Order: sequence, then structure tokens, then C-alpha cells
Amino acid sequence: MEKLSRNSRVVAITKILTENPNKVIGLNKFSDLLNAAKSTISEDIVIVREILEKLQMGKVETIAGAAGGIKFIPGIEDESRRKFAEEICEMLKDKSRIVPGNFIYVTDLMYDPQIVSKAGVILSSEFYNKGVDYVVTVETKGIPLAYEVARNLGIPLVIIRRDNKVTEGSTVTINYVSGTNGRIQQMSLSKRSMKPRSKCIFIDDFLRGGGTAQGIKDLLNEFESELIGIGVLIDNIGVTQKRVDEYISIVQLRNLEDEQGLEVKPSNFIL
Amino acid sequence: MEKLSRNSRVVAITKILTENPNKVIGLNKFSDLLNAAKSTISEDIVIVREILEKLQMGKVETIAGAAGGIKFIPGIEDESRRKFAEEICEMLKDKSRIVPGNFIYVTDLMYDPQIVSKAGVILSSEFYNKGVDYVVTVETKGIPLAYEVARNLGIPLVIIRRDNKVTEGSTVTINYVSGTNGRIQQMSLSKRSMKPRSKCIFIDDFLRGGGTAQGIKDLLNEFESELIGIGVLIDNIGVTQKRVDEYISIVQLRNLEDEQGLEVKPSNFIL
Repeated sequence: MEKLSRNSRVVAITKILTENPNKVIGLNKFSDLLNAAKSTISEDIVIVREILEKLQMGKVETIAGAAGGIKFIPGIEDESRRKFAEEICEMLKDKSRIVPGNFIYVTDLMYDPQIVSKAGVILSSEFYNKGVDYVVTVETKGIPLAYEVARNLGIPLVIIRRDNKVTEGSTVTINYVSGTNGRIQQMSLSKRSMKPRSKCIFIDDFLRGGGTAQGIKDLLNEFESELIGIGVLIDNIGVTQKRVDEYISIVQLRNLEDEQGLEVKPSNFIL
Repeated sequence: MEKLSRNSRVVAITKILTENPNKVIGLNKFSDLLNAAKSTISEDIVIVREILEKLQMGKVETIAGAAGGIKFIPGIEDESRRKFAEEICEMLKDKSRIVPGNFIYVTDLMYDPQIVSKAGVILSSEFYNKGVDYVVTVETKGIPLAYEVARNLGIPLVIIRRDNKVTEGSTVTINYVSGTNGRIQQMSLSKRSMKPRSKCIFIDDFLRGGGTAQGIKDLLNEFESELIGIGVLIDNIGVTQKRVDEYISIVQLRNLEDEQGLEVKPSNFIL
């Protein structure tokens, strides 16, 4: 390939970095692809780093050593972050979301890539450099969000199932008590899905009583693994007795009495 | 903000475009954010377009008119595409993937963001400009891949459930016959999840007999909607009688007799 201009090279570098969040990429890769000396690529990277940081679009970190290179940490500017949380609050306030049983319909939010990708950047920002091995969720509604967090952290997703599937091979199943309704439920995870002694975070749509999170802790114990963090889109603060104490959320919500609607506000984590 | 250099502007434009696939972004947005005239931004965009096309990293299309602007269509170079399909084949050949019942364990592939994001770009490339409204899948294993396709197409995901959840409000439920084992199963979808007269595509991990795809067609009928395309990671060509005829896949697989392993090859769509 002929020589490319600096303009062209920084476009290609930006594209590759943003598509491989939290993955170390050696300068050789850029050097080969773009037919330029490593010293030239290093200068290009300075430009990419400076403008991304200036616009709060993420960080480019340098990793020294033989296995070194650069990696991209996704970011979102403070104002967009607050605006995003406020937009979610507005959407949740819509009374037509309340379905029989005083539950709130949030499926459309959880399956909208525009929303999920932003929420994923916000939640994952808490977990870089914590040595997380897997992002764990329970089927079904939290899967896209958990996937986005896993993609940003550059690690695999693990989905716990409610039932046993023949395609999963041997599984470990536990019973747990749902924090909200006190009912006994099951969680099942393939023995192959995780290496022992892993560090995991749990990502979901809602946190109510924390029973599911407690169940995941117990299940991870069976894999000699550890739950080191929890992140959700919505914290139901109407349920005051939680079985877990440390978690982050993007918005907080409380059902008002007599189906009069909801009180919703951005979480402290966002402000 | 002070004036930025062209190098800096093209980095920011690339970042915004790649994070908003298939979404029309007005030049005003770039002009405001980067404090530059629209004519300058237009020149920047030419640079971004040329290098992304040259490296087969995607296309930047111009949409004329009042609601116009530019949009980014993700792409993957032909060689990476083939290499990717061959890597999947290698992974699938591993005999330890065969679990009791002669099923193949593919959960690790379907939950790995590095794999799913590439497969998502490849499958979505078939469906740009087809006016797709929703990407549909059935829980659970295909969700991350379906989400990636939805993200690339800039449209919402719809997840069909096996059971009825209280948090979904009123649902439509149908019975269908699984193509592989002939058993009757259920699919359930919230009435709120889709506008009537929508065009949908179905994305999943495996296609065996096509019974699930046929079930989805029937369920979409209940929403006065239409299935206009199917894409899967793996086509099991050992099952020769399919209930659907048009679909794309990335690799083809056939179980050999007596659990002797698998025959796997890239699909024609890839080559």
C-alpha cells in the first residue's frame, strides 16, 4: 500500500481503537496496516488521544513492555451522562408504562441499542482496572446491557439461565429466594461457562430486593468465583431492605401509592 | 472552544460515526461540536469516507435534503470475513464441544463480544437499505448476536420469550412445532413490543429444521408484521428438510455419525 496521510491514519486508528475497547493493541498492528514507521504511529496516537480526552469521548492508555501497546477506554462526557439519566427518568414517568401488578414496562428501553450502548459505557466506567473476568447476568431483560458492559471491558459475558438446557452440557443449579415476592426460584449455569477463581460483576435492568444478586453470589461460590460489583439501570428505592449493599445504578425509582405513578431521579453515581 | 486541526476533527467525526451505525447525522451536529464551518466539515468527511472505504472498514453515505446528513454503514474487509469464518470452523471442530445427546456447545462463542461483534457486522451487511424495523430473536443464546445486528442497523431488538412474564403486560402467545424434535413449544411476545405492519429479520445462533423460524413467522402474523430475512451463525446442513428456504449463515456444519465429530465449512455467503 502507498503511504497514507496523517489524516487518513488517525481515522483508521480511531476506528480500530473504538471497535476494540479495553484490548491492548500493539503498535506493530497499526504500523503494518497503515504502512508507517512506529515513531510516526506514536505521533498519530498522541493526536487521537488528545482530541478524545478533550471531547471526553474516552481515554487512550499506553501499556509499556514487550506485550505492550495502546488500549481504548470508552468514555462519555459529563453533560451527556446527566442528560442521558434525565431522559431515562422522563421516559419512566410515562404512566402508560405501569402494567397490572404495579410493575413497570421497561422492555423497550432495555432492547434499544441507542439507550443500552450509552448505559453500557456509563456502567462499565466503574469497572476498568478492577481485573474483572466475566460480566454475569440472568436471562432475559438485562442481557443486551450486560453484553454492552462486557464489550466495553473486552471480556466475555456469562448468562445464567432459569432452566436446564440440553445444549449446555453439565450444569450447576441452585435455588434462591426472590427478594421481592419471597418465592423460591432456580438459577442454572453450565460448568463450562467459567474458569474457577474468577472475578465477576453482575449487570441487570432492575435492582429491587437484591435477591437475585444474592442468588448469583451463591451460584458463583459453586464455581469458586467471586462477585465484585453490581450495576443496574434502575434502582427501585421503594424496596428499602436490600440483600446487597454495594451497587451502582443510573436512575432511582419509587412507586407511588395507589398506582399514582412514579417518582424517578438520576442516581448519585451519575451526578 | 478554540479551532481544532483537521487531524483532530476527523478523529472526532470517525468516533461519532462508528458509534452511531446506520443513523443519519446532520452536518450541523459536527459543525457545532467541532466549531467549524459546514464546508470544512464536508471536506473532513471526504477524508473519513475515503480511508474507511479503502481499508474496507465501512461506508459513509450522504443523505440529501432537509433531514439529510451522513450515515455510517459498518463493514469488514473480505479477507477478515473469510478468516473469521475459518476461525469459527476451527473452534467448532473441537470434539470436546460435543455434549450428551450429540449437541454442540457453542455458548462460549455466542457470548464472546469479539466474535459476536464481527458476526454482527457480517450478518447485518445483508440487511441495510431493506427497510427493516426490528431485529427479532428468541431467548436466549442468540440475543447478543441479534443485539449486535440491531445496533449496526440502528433499529430496536425484540426478544420473544418462552414464557409469560408479569412485567411484560398483555402478551400474544402461540404454539409451534420444533423442527428438530417435533415437540410443541410456546413463544410469547408483549403486545407493546412492536408496531403493526413492521418488517422484521430473525437472527439466531443455529438453524436446524427451521421450526423456530416458522413459529416466528406465525407470531409476527399476529402483529400484522412480516419476516423478511433470517441470519444465523451456524447452519446445520445435516438437517436437509428445512421449513424455511431463504436465510444466510456464516458457517455450515454437519454432525458425523457415531459422534465421530463434525464437518464444518464457511457458508457460500461468506466466500
